[in-house]
Amino acid sequence: MLNETHRHDMRSWVESANDSFGDFPVQNLPYGVFRRRGSDDAWRVGVAIGDMILDVNSAHRAGLLGGEAERSATACDAPSLNALMALGARDWFVLRAHLSRLLRADTPEGATAAARAETLLVPQQDAELTVPATVGDYTDFYASVYHATNVGSMFRPDSPLLPNYKWVPIGYHGRASSIVVSGTPVRRPRGQVGTDATTPPLVGSSQRLDYEAEVGFFVGAGNALGEPIPIGAAEAHLFGICLLNDWSARDMQAWEYQPLGPFLAKNFATTVSPWVVTLEALAPFRAPASSRPDGDPLPLPYLMHTPDQAHGGVDLAIEVWLRTTAMRERGLPAERLSVGNVRDMYWTPAQLLTHHASNGCNLRPGDLLGSGTLSGPTPESRGCLLELTWRGSEPRTLANGEVRRFLEDGDEVIMRASCEREGFARIGLGACTGVVQPT
Amino acid sequence: MLNETHRHDMRSWVESANDSFGDFPVQNLPYGVFRRRGSDDAWRVGVAIGDMILDVNSAHRAGLLGGEAERSATACDAPSLNALMALGARDWFVLRAHLSRLLRADTPEGATAAARAETLLVPQQDAELTVPATVGDYTDFYASVYHATNVGSMFRPDSPLLPNYKWVPIGYHGRASSIVVSGTPVRRPRGQVGTDATTPPLVGSSQRLDYEAEVGFFVGAGNALGEPIPIGAAEAHLFGICLLNDWSARDMQAWEYQPLGPFLAKNFATTVSPWVVTLEALAPFRAPASSRPDGDPLPLPYLMHTPDQAHGGVDLAIEVWLRTTAMRERGLPAERLSVGNVRDMYWTPAQLLTHHASNGCNLRPGDLLGSGTLSGPTPESRGCLLELTWRGSEPRTLANGEVRRFLEDGDEVIMRASCEREGFARIGLGACTGVVQPT
Repeated sequence: MLNETHRHDMRSWVESANDSFGDFPVQNLPYGVFRRRGSDDAWRVGVAIGDMILDVNSAHRAGLLGGEAERSATACDAPSLNALMALGARDWFVLRAHLSRLLRADTPEGATAAARAETLLVPQQDAELTVPATVGDYTDFYASVYHATNVGSMFRPDSPLLPNYKWVPIGYHGRASSIVVSGTPVRRPRGQVGTDATTPPLVGSSQRLDYEAEVGFFVGAGNALGEPIPIGAAEAHLFGICLLNDWSARDMQAWEYQPLGPFLAKNFATTVSPWVVTLEALAPFRAPASSRPDGDPLPLPYLMHTPDQAHGGVDLAIEVWLRTTAMRERGLPAERLSVGNVRDMYWTPAQLLTHHASNGCNLRPGDLLGSGTLSGPTPESRGCLLELTWRGSEPRTLANGEVRRFLEDGDEVIMRASCEREGFARIGLGACTGVVQPT
Repeated sequence: MLNETHRHDMRSWVESANDSFGDFPVQNLPYGVFRRRGSDDAWRVGVAIGDMILDVNSAHRAGLLGGEAERSATACDAPSLNALMALGARDWFVLRAHLSRLLRADTPEGATAAARAETLLVPQQDAELTVPATVGDYTDFYASVYHATNVGSMFRPDSPLLPNYKWVPIGYHGRASSIVVSGTPVRRPRGQVGTDATTPPLVGSSQRLDYEAEVGFFVGAGNALGEPIPIGAAEAHLFGICLLNDWSARDMQAWEYQPLGPFLAKNFATTVSPWVVTLEALAPFRAPASSRPDGDPLPLPYLMHTPDQAHGGVDLAIEVWLRTTAMRERGLPAERLSVGNVRDMYWTPAQLLTHHASNGCNLRPGDLLGSGTLSGPTPESRGCLLELTWRGSEPRTLANGEVRRFLEDGDEVIMRASCEREGFARIGLGACTGVVQPT
């Protein structure tokens, strides 16, 4: 639902927010958790605005977030977003409306806030950010049919897509403890790589380290154990979106994953971007549910909801960039490897959430649902090196002459995502980065 | 290492602890988290002794757990065991020694405590217990080669055991949010059951609901992300053991589990017993590592440790009992379905932990590692109905004439486990129970 907070012509008194190529205009207002860089201050909730962070607690203490917003602002007096997430859509709506007026150039609330800018704002360059919520459980889905088909055709050329794929939103549980925030170095894992029962596997550093370009959906209000969430109510349980890099050791994965799924090939690190863009901010960019081709089965009734089919998707482009050690040393810019889109998911975020709770599984505020690798139909939209280099068989030659099959030590993977639509302000998710370190 | 706390001839001033068939003699001293039944009191740490609970916080406040035990007793002033688990083996040893003297009949500390019994003890029948630790991540392994072979031979008769099994301790991430304590009813899940890509799956209540008899190992002190735990240090990171029922919907599992593993077939509920028996209490019952037959490969070097091979296993028998609605109504006792043993694991608890962290994955205090279904080599030792009835093809006729392929609504599954050895007090884990409720 579009409202006042989405208006294209609004400007902020924070001048950097008015850059039409920036990620964080006053129409975005993503939440994160920050403190002054290098300090031992308590982590606190902030809102990105241009190149600054609005300190929500300071605004609250200054009396700028009272009245209807009192409850949601109080929930932000915490070192994570979980309490805010738990409140539900009505409170998120109210807080966003207040924050919008507080940061606009043309409101009395904005004028009051601007006069106190020094106590309310922290430059992003002076802040460090952390994982924005305590993630109780992290689930990773497999929602791109293009990714599933590509990967399947490498391992099972005769039946690339398994029979369940178009009926079941396939997912599995990931590791919550090793979720790290953008910028955290990622150590190349050691592990077993084997071929058959009788030859001892090799144990050493993964030689096929990969990224996976995904988005993560943060659960807002949860459900009680045993109580499913109907598809019509699912979106009200979704708080917002971040970028997610599901680092993967392909050689370890191929050896270990039968019959219970990926384990050590994935759980050494999962990187998330620090800013959570709310579903409300993405309202102008909703899209029809997936590109389910004619002839594919309709979703089963428990996953079928006409409004979700009409606009349950998100038109959100996701780019992957690579910066190698050589590029850094020679001052070369990063090179773009792919552009995918969240719109290409076979299942909507609401369908993922409803399926997850359909057996009574309880979701909690702050739980994270990964989309799975966001590959689209074209080669340029493939969201991991496994697909881009077709398992290493088609190496990628970079502009500076370097060649990549998989990631090398020192490689930095940078993901960015944004929504653009004529007549609306551009909304960005910021960056999700990580440099590969040797074992 | 055996010490004073394991002596067979010790008696407690809590008379019920001296019953030689009980689970909780003074040689056991398992930890749990309890409050008075039906109250809104804060959850608190207790130690089971006979049919009573020692309130650790009360003993601490009464000055009975000071000195060397001050730190560990302070860690128990909490609504979960996580802080105690985080301290590490030295503090666990000290606290156990103090608790032992406090509860013995022949020590001055015991005499002091006995005089204050009314403020220190709560009858177990007046208490409710909860999940003893906040479980950050729950991992389930697949450590019985007999279970893996049985299940594999149903689905892949030509290659029952996959090539990786004898090299990789196979495991996967489970759901932390739906871990419930013994006694919690378990609702039969709904879900999809399908057969092929073109026929719409049926959606309804699972018709093949099963239990899995497992033990859970609680992680004590954790490791930093990126820092593996050498096999020689692994046991020092293990706090203790509980019973675990990994409820499984076999029909949903068969349809959904390819290619990423079980998901909704498992995450609707996992039941744990409330008492955590420490590894120290189990010291007299350690056993050689598994029954790895001659001709099987040796563990890879990172999983190989001579002391672990010599006594890394645990001789702990685990029984599964069934009580149907008809049995309850007619006052019949529960019927025993199987007896297995933790000793039959192909991998030791230390190997599971070291493998888990071998890629740098960080484990945290309170994390839970499930053993996987504890089936042994004989039909009587099969730890789930899938195996006992061979996928329903060999129904089980109960003594009262009822027949079971899988669980029916109203069925209560009761697991018990204990260690017995000549010259040592019997150590029990208590019970892990759950009644199946209709969807």
